[in-house]
Amino acid sequence: MSAATSIDAAFRALGDPTRRRVIEQLSLRPASMTELSRPFAISLPTLSKHLGILEKSGLVRSAKVGRVRTYQLVPGRLKSAESWLTEQRTLWERRLDQLDEYLATLKEEEP
Amino acid sequence: MSAATSIDAAFRALGDPTRRRVIEQLSLRPASMTELSRPFAISLPTLSKHLGILEKSGLVRSAKVGRVRTYQLVPGRLKSAESWLTEQRTLWERRLDQLDEYLATLKEEEP
Repeated sequence: MSAATSIDAAFRALGDPTRRRVIEQLSLRPASMTELSRPFAISLPTLSKHLGILEKSGLVRSAKVGRVRTYQLVPGRLKSAESWLTEQRTLWERRLDQLDEYLATLKEEEP
Repeated sequence: MSAATSIDAAFRALGDPTRRRVIEQLSLRPASMTELSRPFAISLPTLSKHLGILEKSGLVRSAKVGRVRTYQLVPGRLKSAESWLTEQRTLWERRLDQLDEYLATLKEEEP
């Protein structure tokens, strides 16, 4: 996956409240599907579909130990999405600062 | 729109490279559709569809002055998405720090 494709998949995966709740839980600790299902009133097959989307997006990975599959957060992909957003906000705030300075200059020039 | 619904729409809208390029341009300055179309090899109707999705998600708003419609960034929605991501990363890093401390304690207890 290219950088653009991977960030696409990350943002799309985050555009769903169930998947964000899963990420919130995995930010605290790794968890099995049964543990992850507790706060939700959804079936295991539906949760499994969401977990599949999260794994495919690279936000989450899983490993099977014995009979239990454990899910954990992959922070790199979250970090890329966060960095992109921070960059846009910074650019936007810089532009606002420049407008502020410009307005101040205009005021100083007033008779 | 509830907070969850609006953040859903924001993340989904950001999961497309054309729409992210539009946001990147609007972080620098407001722009008309013609200006926004310049870096892209896409038709105006396709770009218009993307702009519609961005406006509906609350990331962008537009106003018509005379015959030209100008698009600009609405930073609040971007900020919500960024804050959510920052919170998850912070929780995850705190957990790693706790694991570090725990491992350090184990080492100290070694004979």
